[in-house]
Amino acid sequence: MGETHIGRRDRLAALVAGRDAGALLVTRLVNVRYLTGLDSSNAALLVPADGPAVLATDGRYAGMAADVCPELEVVVDRRAAAALAARAEGDGIARLGFEAHALTVEQHEELAAKTGVRLAGLGRLVEELRRVKDEEELALLREACAITDRAFDAVLPLVRPGVTERAIAIALERRMVDFGAERPAFASIVASGPNGAIPHHHPGGRAVERGDLVTMDFGALYGGYHADMTRTVAIGEPASWQRDVYDLVHRAQRAAVDAAVPGAETRDVDAAARTIIKDAGHGEAFTHGLGHGVGLEIHEAPLLGYDRTGKLMDRVPITAEPGVYLAGRGGVRIEDTLVVRADAPELLTTTTKDLLVL
Amino acid sequence: MGETHIGRRDRLAALVAGRDAGALLVTRLVNVRYLTGLDSSNAALLVPADGPAVLATDGRYAGMAADVCPELEVVVDRRAAAALAARAEGDGIARLGFEAHALTVEQHEELAAKTGVRLAGLGRLVEELRRVKDEEELALLREACAITDRAFDAVLPLVRPGVTERAIAIALERRMVDFGAERPAFASIVASGPNGAIPHHHPGGRAVERGDLVTMDFGALYGGYHADMTRTVAIGEPASWQRDVYDLVHRAQRAAVDAAVPGAETRDVDAAARTIIKDAGHGEAFTHGLGHGVGLEIHEAPLLGYDRTGKLMDRVPITAEPGVYLAGRGGVRIEDTLVVRADAPELLTTTTKDLLVL
Repeated sequence: MGETHIGRRDRLAALVAGRDAGALLVTRLVNVRYLTGLDSSNAALLVPADGPAVLATDGRYAGMAADVCPELEVVVDRRAAAALAARAEGDGIARLGFEAHALTVEQHEELAAKTGVRLAGLGRLVEELRRVKDEEELALLREACAITDRAFDAVLPLVRPGVTERAIAIALERRMVDFGAERPAFASIVASGPNGAIPHHHPGGRAVERGDLVTMDFGALYGGYHADMTRTVAIGEPASWQRDVYDLVHRAQRAAVDAAVPGAETRDVDAAARTIIKDAGHGEAFTHGLGHGVGLEIHEAPLLGYDRTGKLMDRVPITAEPGVYLAGRGGVRIEDTLVVRADAPELLTTTTKDLLVL
Repeated sequence: MGETHIGRRDRLAALVAGRDAGALLVTRLVNVRYLTGLDSSNAALLVPADGPAVLATDGRYAGMAADVCPELEVVVDRRAAAALAARAEGDGIARLGFEAHALTVEQHEELAAKTGVRLAGLGRLVEELRRVKDEEELALLREACAITDRAFDAVLPLVRPGVTERAIAIALERRMVDFGAERPAFASIVASGPNGAIPHHHPGGRAVERGDLVTMDFGALYGGYHADMTRTVAIGEPASWQRDVYDLVHRAQRAAVDAAVPGAETRDVDAAARTIIKDAGHGEAFTHGLGHGVGLEIHEAPLLGYDRTGKLMDRVPITAEPGVYLAGRGGVRIEDTLVVRADAPELLTTTTKDLLVL
């Protein structure tokens, strides 16, 4: 991993130099992890435009840092950001970039009061690097998605009348851990019958009934990478409105996947699905954006919505998850995690999207 | 729950009035949850010094908000904070408090650019309210701790030579869910043999061996409240150094619990344990603070460390978790969650602290 992280830091250093800063003080923990491999609850990283990076963390993580990134100098200090600002000042850096989207107003005031260095808010430099994944990251995400597929398959026999949403959610989460996940990538959603109209329903004590649609939205965390998949199944022969809505969302999802090519505007990918749903008269019932990037975070750049801008690129993993939610009746959502690729999108979640009638 | 949340908002409104602000814009999600009951990933709350609060959240959570806090006006807007700042301006508020420890520099700039209201960073007003728990909160925390005790009991027969740290961690987490936990309150620590010298060891593939000490640090999340308990056990008859270190940490932990009375300075509670460990020559091996508040967060106010200030109060739940870590050899940590009470501390985790020899 050392080489990988050195390469990431080198690319960041070039961006920092381009922004006329002597160094960037990275305080977002997920960004520190991306740049060093260290997964901790208290750390910061100083990345100079020129010269080696310096990590700061507290005593609890010092040993771990020595194992994970032996090539890095480590400052052991509970006030990691302040220690690195002092270091930057000592190294003669005049203008120190910080992550304006991560540092709080209070942290900024504290730093500014303590250091003689000029602080300059820079944009999401590390998040921009993180958007395009390297092969090592894609391998981890592939495994996260494979575990997710296997868990769905293993739990399907349980999804029958009488079983509660909560029991299904627990079973999905257990099977993911059985199959090698660190843990679930996010709180699993299982929404049955009328609850399916609530996009982020917390699985509860409602038992599945014949005639329900059941939406399951879940994913595995593996090596720090987040899978995200949704399938909606029918319990017993579906009513015609259920089949119609399912087919509609299915068509919309396929159109979005097909539109996810390098160079595509994110809002056009959203529109590929949204137009189909709108034309069928359900535009109001698709209440959220099409999807989002996935990686070290479950939601990361790029966001795909009707009002989002930006272009897709090769090796960017995203979700495509249109849904239709009908209050009091139920809902359908279908979601894959996929990677934008030059030739064709690479689906990482490969569970069938044919309507399963259980 | 409605009455409880109204009471919390009323107490906050009084604090806001005392800080000369027309309203407080609450953007920390855990604080929004404390004040409304709504658990969401995108919400903000406007709490005027005088008059009813207004909640903002996006379309995904609108239905949930109507269920959870029907007494509140809800603005449905993805840009929750900006919508409420505009609302405050419309309501004629001149000075709008914000949470300087939660709002990022970027969010602050965006808000400031959009609103004519003067923004004023206020301190941790909601966190201060949250420090002292009401009976409803203590009941949830009690249940979280009871689940934690039960899981330890259920998993103990598994803690034998040949079982991996990872298997023990998974078993603890499963049993907690079996016994009613929403999920683990944090990533469980299981550290065996030499790994016990790493306070935050990630449980891995090492199998427990005869002669090990095994430290298990874990807890249940129940109703949003976090339990936190650590026990160290011996695998086979302990060596004399192991028994000595165990007895030392045990004495230190008991002294800290006894010192946790209303009015006590937090650093004195830390010192009660630290002095005992120092006097035995292991001061350098107790590398972290004594403990922390628990509640809607696993780490919250008050923090208990040698350099922390502040007084304990009735109905403040804390952890007391001294440890001794000996590089290459192993470690001992013993931790309870307890509530500071006028008469005597109320231990919420009640698993025995006698050294268990398995």
